[in-house]
Amino acid sequence: MDSADAIQWIIPIAGLAAVLFAGYLARDVLRRDTGTQAMVDVGDIIYEGAVAFIRRQYTTIAVLAIGAAVVIGIVIALVENRREVADTDIFGVELGIMTGVAFLVGAAASMASGVIGMYISVKSNVRTAAAARRSLVEAVQVAMRGGAVSGFLVVALSLLGVWGIFAAYGGFTNPAQAPFLIVGFGFGASFVALFAQLGGGIYTKAADVGSDLVGKIEAGIPEDDPRNAAVIADLVGDNVGDCAGRGADLFESTAAENIGAMILGVAAFVIASAANWPNPEAWIFFPLVVRAFGLLATIGAMYFVRGSDEEDPMNILNRGYWATTILSVVGLAITTYVMMQTGPDEVGAMNIPSWLWMFAAGVVGLATSVAFVYITQYYTAGSWRPVKEIAEASKTGPATNIISGTAVGFETTFVTAVTIGIALMVSAFLGSQAFEGTGEPHVGAILGTAVATMGMLMTTAYILAMDTFGPITDNAGGIAEFSRAEAGAREITDRLDAVGNTTKALTKGYAIASASLAAFLLFSAYIDKVNLILAAQGRAAMEAINLAEVGVFVAAFIGAMLAFFFSSLAIRAVGKAASAIIVEVRRQFREMPGIMDYTQRPDYARVVDITTRSALREMVAPGVVAVATPIIVGVLLGHEAVAGMLMVGTISGVLLATVLNNGGGAWDNAKKYIESGHLTDEAGNVIGKGTPAHAAAVVGDTVGDPFKDTAGPSLHVLVKLLATITLVLAPLFIR
Amino acid sequence: MDSADAIQWIIPIAGLAAVLFAGYLARDVLRRDTGTQAMVDVGDIIYEGAVAFIRRQYTTIAVLAIGAAVVIGIVIALVENRREVADTDIFGVELGIMTGVAFLVGAAASMASGVIGMYISVKSNVRTAAAARRSLVEAVQVAMRGGAVSGFLVVALSLLGVWGIFAAYGGFTNPAQAPFLIVGFGFGASFVALFAQLGGGIYTKAADVGSDLVGKIEAGIPEDDPRNAAVIADLVGDNVGDCAGRGADLFESTAAENIGAMILGVAAFVIASAANWPNPEAWIFFPLVVRAFGLLATIGAMYFVRGSDEEDPMNILNRGYWATTILSVVGLAITTYVMMQTGPDEVGAMNIPSWLWMFAAGVVGLATSVAFVYITQYYTAGSWRPVKEIAEASKTGPATNIISGTAVGFETTFVTAVTIGIALMVSAFLGSQAFEGTGEPHVGAILGTAVATMGMLMTTAYILAMDTFGPITDNAGGIAEFSRAEAGAREITDRLDAVGNTTKALTKGYAIASASLAAFLLFSAYIDKVNLILAAQGRAAMEAINLAEVGVFVAAFIGAMLAFFFSSLAIRAVGKAASAIIVEVRRQFREMPGIMDYTQRPDYARVVDITTRSALREMVAPGVVAVATPIIVGVLLGHEAVAGMLMVGTISGVLLATVLNNGGGAWDNAKKYIESGHLTDEAGNVIGKGTPAHAAAVVGDTVGDPFKDTAGPSLHVLVKLLATITLVLAPLFIR
Repeated sequence: MDSADAIQWIIPIAGLAAVLFAGYLARDVLRRDTGTQAMVDVGDIIYEGAVAFIRRQYTTIAVLAIGAAVVIGIVIALVENRREVADTDIFGVELGIMTGVAFLVGAAASMASGVIGMYISVKSNVRTAAAARRSLVEAVQVAMRGGAVSGFLVVALSLLGVWGIFAAYGGFTNPAQAPFLIVGFGFGASFVALFAQLGGGIYTKAADVGSDLVGKIEAGIPEDDPRNAAVIADLVGDNVGDCAGRGADLFESTAAENIGAMILGVAAFVIASAANWPNPEAWIFFPLVVRAFGLLATIGAMYFVRGSDEEDPMNILNRGYWATTILSVVGLAITTYVMMQTGPDEVGAMNIPSWLWMFAAGVVGLATSVAFVYITQYYTAGSWRPVKEIAEASKTGPATNIISGTAVGFETTFVTAVTIGIALMVSAFLGSQAFEGTGEPHVGAILGTAVATMGMLMTTAYILAMDTFGPITDNAGGIAEFSRAEAGAREITDRLDAVGNTTKALTKGYAIASASLAAFLLFSAYIDKVNLILAAQGRAAMEAINLAEVGVFVAAFIGAMLAFFFSSLAIRAVGKAASAIIVEVRRQFREMPGIMDYTQRPDYARVVDITTRSALREMVAPGVVAVATPIIVGVLLGHEAVAGMLMVGTISGVLLATVLNNGGGAWDNAKKYIESGHLTDEAGNVIGKGTPAHAAAVVGDTVGDPFKDTAGPSLHVLVKLLATITLVLAPLFIR
Repeated sequence: MDSADAIQWIIPIAGLAAVLFAGYLARDVLRRDTGTQAMVDVGDIIYEGAVAFIRRQYTTIAVLAIGAAVVIGIVIALVENRREVADTDIFGVELGIMTGVAFLVGAAASMASGVIGMYISVKSNVRTAAAARRSLVEAVQVAMRGGAVSGFLVVALSLLGVWGIFAAYGGFTNPAQAPFLIVGFGFGASFVALFAQLGGGIYTKAADVGSDLVGKIEAGIPEDDPRNAAVIADLVGDNVGDCAGRGADLFESTAAENIGAMILGVAAFVIASAANWPNPEAWIFFPLVVRAFGLLATIGAMYFVRGSDEEDPMNILNRGYWATTILSVVGLAITTYVMMQTGPDEVGAMNIPSWLWMFAAGVVGLATSVAFVYITQYYTAGSWRPVKEIAEASKTGPATNIISGTAVGFETTFVTAVTIGIALMVSAFLGSQAFEGTGEPHVGAILGTAVATMGMLMTTAYILAMDTFGPITDNAGGIAEFSRAEAGAREITDRLDAVGNTTKALTKGYAIASASLAAFLLFSAYIDKVNLILAAQGRAAMEAINLAEVGVFVAAFIGAMLAFFFSSLAIRAVGKAASAIIVEVRRQFREMPGIMDYTQRPDYARVVDITTRSALREMVAPGVVAVATPIIVGVLLGHEAVAGMLMVGTISGVLLATVLNNGGGAWDNAKKYIESGHLTDEAGNVIGKGTPAHAAAVVGDTVGDPFKDTAGPSLHVLVKLLATITLVLAPLFIR
């Protein structure tokens, strides 16, 4: 066994290490002090509400997933029965069953990571609130460790899941065939992620918007005030939307993009086999190995999450992020050096070894990740021009606040598109240089973009930990307010909450950047799969996705439209669910007069229940549209057109998500900017809370809520779902 | 001379007839009563402001256009000097000069139609206000005739301009070469349209938003109240933005799309020449002939614009629209029968004559136009679900109003994309059937989409007349209010203003639909032009625009982003200019205390001047971005990538314009819905003017202003500019 074979064992080792480390962190968090009795009580109510929602939501999703698995299995069995697939003896019924099973395994793993992440975060919030009574650093550590449990479990489950199903489907004996057999896993993961993100996103924002409108604006009581019956639903929402939703989102990113990269690796495997390079199968395994090193880097980085009480908490988190990035560069160097060796006579352009070119492509991915972290901070944090501009515009009322925020949201597409464009061009160039000697620079170029994507995804576990930090601290703040904790604790949770807003925005920037980088990888994989089937039918390969064909153009048009239409449904769903909440809270204020003077306890459970039912009802329409549209277009217009839909739909989805996420984040922080007393009039007087400018900023913040926490994140899932759905159902679209 | 030769004379005849008819209408309008002295005074102030702005704006644009013409001429001369162009002896310096001259002629014609349209409309508004003192029908007729002057002149100038430059550049002796030589005309027209629409759009909405915020919201005085110094600027804005801007927009639509269709006709000309069909050059001339029949149909239809005072004024206008459509079908049948004859043995599929297939494709275009008129009404008029939904959402405040309006705006992309998709697929199918016998069904398919586009554009003059009706009646209402006219007159102008809002929305729907239908035509023309140059260099043709190439994908990404970024700049420009106005009006209220009790006259001229300067300054950034981005991408990434940018940029621009136009229109009418007393609470009590719900709806209306009247219409121009810029500069991008 040589080094390229040996290094593959890092996959299960790192996966298990991450699971054990998550267990260690979870034990550490759960052992901690849960604070006052009042805190424990609120924590328990939130826990019950979250569990009740997740149980009902995941039951619904499970039923949908099982139905979908059966349909997919039957369709694949029928369609693939018409012919034999090249280089494989697996087709027809057998392939149908394998695809259906892979779908269910992917769905189950995704659901498991969502449930576990939500469980730990809902247990961490009360402990973070308790720690905030003592010290800032301790509170940061509790919240970050709770978040890291999610981060590690999601990434490790994805890694182990893909590796396990790859092994089970003959990956070690026939590595060039197995990547095509496991695409169902990715589809299953995206299917669950779609409904988890939609349902959770609708829940959390309906509760947030409903609670703010009826409490802060109508009744004039503070946010998170216990007299507002919708407050518990709002706190539950942070857990089921932000934690469980984003966990499922990034689970499917890592799963689908790993599988796509493995499919692209098959082309390199063929070249490597023909040229007698050492370890041709290393080209297929490298995505999993890179990911494994990313997990190890993140474990190491957790020991850098420390600092002092005087420090900006964001610095403490950034320290860990930079540690992850630097350790990832080391892991990337080892992986590319060991696995991306071409034959003894084959080197890349300028006599530079191929692995070094590929290493550089991976570094491009990591650099893109860093770039997006800072781009997002620029656009959504209060210290820079965009947020200040929105705060200034609030002086002339809500209309100018909205106009200004929309302009900022639209503006963010520029740097997003240019950064992604440069990353793709550069990584493709580096990859083509690596393969120059092979006469197949095109394969190298696409592999270069895949390596860049893998590099970017190395830090996923850490990013996800920072993301979950957000809702945990948000909840901790809510618990402190709700349980009327001492002012010092509240001040600390407020500071953490502000940092959490930034980390939540960062994760969305990261998720969108990785989705765009991966888009190219995923439809290259689609083209490979279509050509495999066409070759099996003895037909010519699909050479191009020609936009000048009417059918491709129309499909591209529909794909671009899908992002807008889907967002419309998601946004409207929040509005409908929020209306139901408002009606109920108004009823309670009216019929239970004791609420206002604290003599009567509002009926929290009823609002939680109404929110649960509305969110589950409203998630169906956008979910069905997302799944059905690519299938209808593929069946009507064929396999080339659906590729056009996938590509242009991805572009449109990424841009619209950027607009919605960053616009929403900027509105949120413009409000915070005013609340912190940074806005002044011409004479230098502070325009703070309670002024008309602040009221205008609250309008912008409320508008931004469904944009940034429902539609935007759901679009991330949509673009990846488009990719996995077309990959799995490619045989159905060929004609 | 046979019939296909003879029918070409309809082009100058119809063009001149339309000009004469416009002169007749203008004389009729100008001869009419100008009302009270107060009306005349206001009318004169508006006239002066509009002329002052147009003079300064068009001076700026003229300087920019002359500079651009010189640069383009030099670039073409240098680039084209490297080689000879196939089938032509015109290249190098000669081609550079011809392109530059065509650019200037197109620019001049576009500016002329803008100026004339603005002049007549500014003269019609006071006469409409005067007529409203007597009868509704008379007021409708004055406004519609004033609008028709613009409509006829814009379309006739475009027709005569393209025909004239075609003739001057040897179109009668070498019809297959001339269409490629005149593309500069289209670029010149789009260049002017871009700055006219941007400058006018920024002016009109900065004045509108600024005036509303400082008058209605801050000072609590009614809209169009003479105490508000920004009111005159607002009235001026309607003329320079809506009239002059939209005139330039549709001028360039008809010009660019005619030229594109003529380029596509060259392919059919080649087939027809080889197969010895009668009149091969008819395939090149048909777009102009179709347009000429459209003009004649519109002249006839003007006699159907009549009705009674009891009638809904919209019915009167719809009667004329249907007359135009039906007469256009007749004209289309004549044109296709005479001009689209294939050889004696060549018929289309199923033994149906080719002309009949092509006639059907043209009818698809007309039907698409009708479909968009009704789709736009559904989404933006008060009688249907979308506007009611926004009005309902206003009950819970501005945030839910904005969320609901955004959802409606996003939703409208669905029916837009599906309708356009169906129109393209069906017309391409019909066209391919027409050419089945030739063995070149692909050429027929693209021609089919071109014929559909031409069919759709037949009604442009009427649509533009209805559009200009909008600002004329809007101004008439303003004049009536400002001059404190009798209540009866104001009631009539209010009714007409509401109709005008609908017709303005319709035109935008029509403009966007024609832009999408034409998009496919325009980049097919681009591909033809690139292949002509490649053939001259002895290189293989560009077979596909392959989205799976990294460069094409990145260019597509940038193209899609451009629509968002450009809109961001346009929207921000309105905000900045509006701020300048608000500061000035506040100063006047503060320093001129007599304004409020009517003892002191506000300084209208100063606000007009400030608005003019801001609008001209702010139009530069988005304009430069729009022109520079395709050039940079083309030079860096090459001719295939820029085609991807053009196509995906068009898709993205069309969808975003749909969102902005329809969202803005729906917000506007949701406010009007509440003002008309249609919104009620649970108990059935009317929630009308002055309620919090109305205030919330005003916020939505204000947000929608820059969306629907600045960014949206400017996006129409952007997508067409992308097409003409790539057509003209194709030689620069080839590598």
